[in-house]
Amino acid sequence: MFSKTPTKGMRDFLPEEFRFRQKVLEIIQSTYEKYGFSRIATPSVENIDLLCSKQGGDNEKLIYKILKRGEKLERAEEGKMCDLGLRYDLTVPLARFFANNQGQLPSVFKAMQMDYVWRADRPQRGRYRQFMQCDIDILGEESNIAEIDLITATMQALKNLGFNGITVKISDRRLLTAIANKCGFEKEIHDKVFIILDKLDKIGIGDVMNEIEEIAPGKSVAFVDMLNRILHSDNALQTAIDELGEELSPSVSENLRQIIAVTNNTVTNGKVVFDVTLVRGMGYYTGTIYEISLDGLDISAGGGGRYDEMIGKIAGTKVPACGFSIGFERIVLLLSERGAKIGGQRNATALVIPKKCTDKQYCDIMDYAQHHRTNGTEVSIVKRIKNFAFQLKQLREQGFDLIYEYRENGELVKID
Amino acid sequence: MFSKTPTKGMRDFLPEEFRFRQKVLEIIQSTYEKYGFSRIATPSVENIDLLCSKQGGDNEKLIYKILKRGEKLERAEEGKMCDLGLRYDLTVPLARFFANNQGQLPSVFKAMQMDYVWRADRPQRGRYRQFMQCDIDILGEESNIAEIDLITATMQALKNLGFNGITVKISDRRLLTAIANKCGFEKEIHDKVFIILDKLDKIGIGDVMNEIEEIAPGKSVAFVDMLNRILHSDNALQTAIDELGEELSPSVSENLRQIIAVTNNTVTNGKVVFDVTLVRGMGYYTGTIYEISLDGLDISAGGGGRYDEMIGKIAGTKVPACGFSIGFERIVLLLSERGAKIGGQRNATALVIPKKCTDKQYCDIMDYAQHHRTNGTEVSIVKRIKNFAFQLKQLREQGFDLIYEYRENGELVKID
Repeated sequence: MFSKTPTKGMRDFLPEEFRFRQKVLEIIQSTYEKYGFSRIATPSVENIDLLCSKQGGDNEKLIYKILKRGEKLERAEEGKMCDLGLRYDLTVPLARFFANNQGQLPSVFKAMQMDYVWRADRPQRGRYRQFMQCDIDILGEESNIAEIDLITATMQALKNLGFNGITVKISDRRLLTAIANKCGFEKEIHDKVFIILDKLDKIGIGDVMNEIEEIAPGKSVAFVDMLNRILHSDNALQTAIDELGEELSPSVSENLRQIIAVTNNTVTNGKVVFDVTLVRGMGYYTGTIYEISLDGLDISAGGGGRYDEMIGKIAGTKVPACGFSIGFERIVLLLSERGAKIGGQRNATALVIPKKCTDKQYCDIMDYAQHHRTNGTEVSIVKRIKNFAFQLKQLREQGFDLIYEYRENGELVKID
Repeated sequence: MFSKTPTKGMRDFLPEEFRFRQKVLEIIQSTYEKYGFSRIATPSVENIDLLCSKQGGDNEKLIYKILKRGEKLERAEEGKMCDLGLRYDLTVPLARFFANNQGQLPSVFKAMQMDYVWRADRPQRGRYRQFMQCDIDILGEESNIAEIDLITATMQALKNLGFNGITVKISDRRLLTAIANKCGFEKEIHDKVFIILDKLDKIGIGDVMNEIEEIAPGKSVAFVDMLNRILHSDNALQTAIDELGEELSPSVSENLRQIIAVTNNTVTNGKVVFDVTLVRGMGYYTGTIYEISLDGLDISAGGGGRYDEMIGKIAGTKVPACGFSIGFERIVLLLSERGAKIGGQRNATALVIPKKCTDKQYCDIMDYAQHHRTNGTEVSIVKRIKNFAFQLKQLREQGFDLIYEYRENGELVKID
């Protein structure tokens, strides 16, 4: 006999859960469509060279690699047994998609992707090896209308799912660099500084200082002092601008300021705030970065940023790009924990018929069912089983709110 | 630089094509829902043991196999480098799904699956290495209400997609066996006989006789004579019954007769006919088999049958099962060749805004767009580019039927 369970870290979706997930996807998609995003899709499988192009950071360690086939496998050298892999995100495939189809795409392309990705990660609560990502990306737009569009659309999608009290934290990679420069950290340790800064929420300012001191002796006090001044100010962005002086280009700070001002004026279910401790892991970000947090929840429900260099590295032509990804699996988990009523009633009729039917009976039954289906009702025909009470119980559990029994004499009886 | 094209045999879907495919899927799903089928989903990745369980026939040769990871790979023996694979169909995973979730499923379970499968096949026109399958299956129902339901629902789905003049050819594996027995073919060569029979349409009766003679000398004439009598009779099923006498169980012929009678009474866009030459490749079929052909087209647009043994082999408990699969990729190809208008107008507004905007301008623009989105219109905001004529052309090509320009003085101008 075979193992009945799904592949480790992956899931079967039963009807009710599938319906719920599909409804959530529909709400997200229809919201994004209102903002001019169009769905596209790429194959689940990409060439291994693309997947291992150093754009995916640590995710590249988690690739499911596919063995070469037939003669190719026989001729393969050791260590080059695989030619394909499952995508670990939707951004790297999007860059290839853009390169492949650029001639047919508008100069500014607003893409929506809702698809599975695969990572051979350590499975844990709310984290799976096959999971859905919902990404919107704007390619070809260098101005901050891209960020404003992405943030506004994402918050609206979450609003349509019933989420209020959303905070979008925003910063800019170039501002982080300015801080690191201002505090005199060598370029080589910038990333390490950012990783420590990223942990502030978890480890507290004291341990941030200790860890910084370890990698850059003598420089932790100035760094932490500056952080404290920014964090405890009434206008964190202005304080950061004042602290950083010439290290921060005015175009970077003005850009951030405008995004924050305009989005806060537009959205109605939360706020957009500058957060000096925001880092975001992905190495490909070049400008703005942002992350969603939901009221009272210590988790990120999505994030994104600007990655103006990445498409160029893959496609050969430099194209400004900016994206926002919703943490779909977390959103679904939160919604189901809240008992959110998404998808509504099933509104279905079950028609229980005799174990044996004559042609005439069958035809009458089918005519009845077809008629009601045409009128919009879901009608499921089932054979009566011996344990009728059990059958009724199962039908009700499946969401059939109307149950009729077709008797052998042609009578149709409603079962209460 | 990396290869820009998708993995060999796989495809990128641009917005228009994606929209079309999604609309076709929506029509199929909403039709099947009316018949009481519920969507489920399994992971794309299954354990290699399950995929290689001899239920998939020749498809098992086409599996994309996934390399073990980390320590597991280091410890792997030669020839056991892979522990997972991409599913090549939706039926084998359904059997595992059923085994895994049986406790939460009703006694009669009507499943719908619309998902990708992967086969490392030789790519050719209309045939891909990643493609969509649309399957409905009824598990736990041994009576022919299953076949009647599946055939009626599938024909209705095709009707809702605009297909009329559909012929569903139907037969039964047990009837084929009765023919083979009646003609005196040894059990060992039954499958070979069926493979030759399957080719009748292509090679003609003469070559069928020659090929049969080669594998069963002296038995081809009786076989071909019987075929001819059935094929040229006004009531092929009755002739077959008469020819086969006691070799064919009355329950098998009565079952077929009733399915044909009832479905023909119910469906309005075609007919269901007995076809003695129908074979269907998959080895797991145990009873009825059926296949869709569309008027004037020499291709199968889907098919299925009863497979009462397969779930037992995978799940350990015997469960009657019956399914119907639509050839989604072919259907999409046919519809797009016909220029079918599925999905309708996009009904979208583009709002062209100045290259640089003040906060006030941005806020006004966003308010305008949000207002119209709330009222149901798709509003896409784009920055004006130098070559405005080119930009307008691109916007129109994308399906924006209303284009407004927001001028710096706050004026909103409709562009014709």
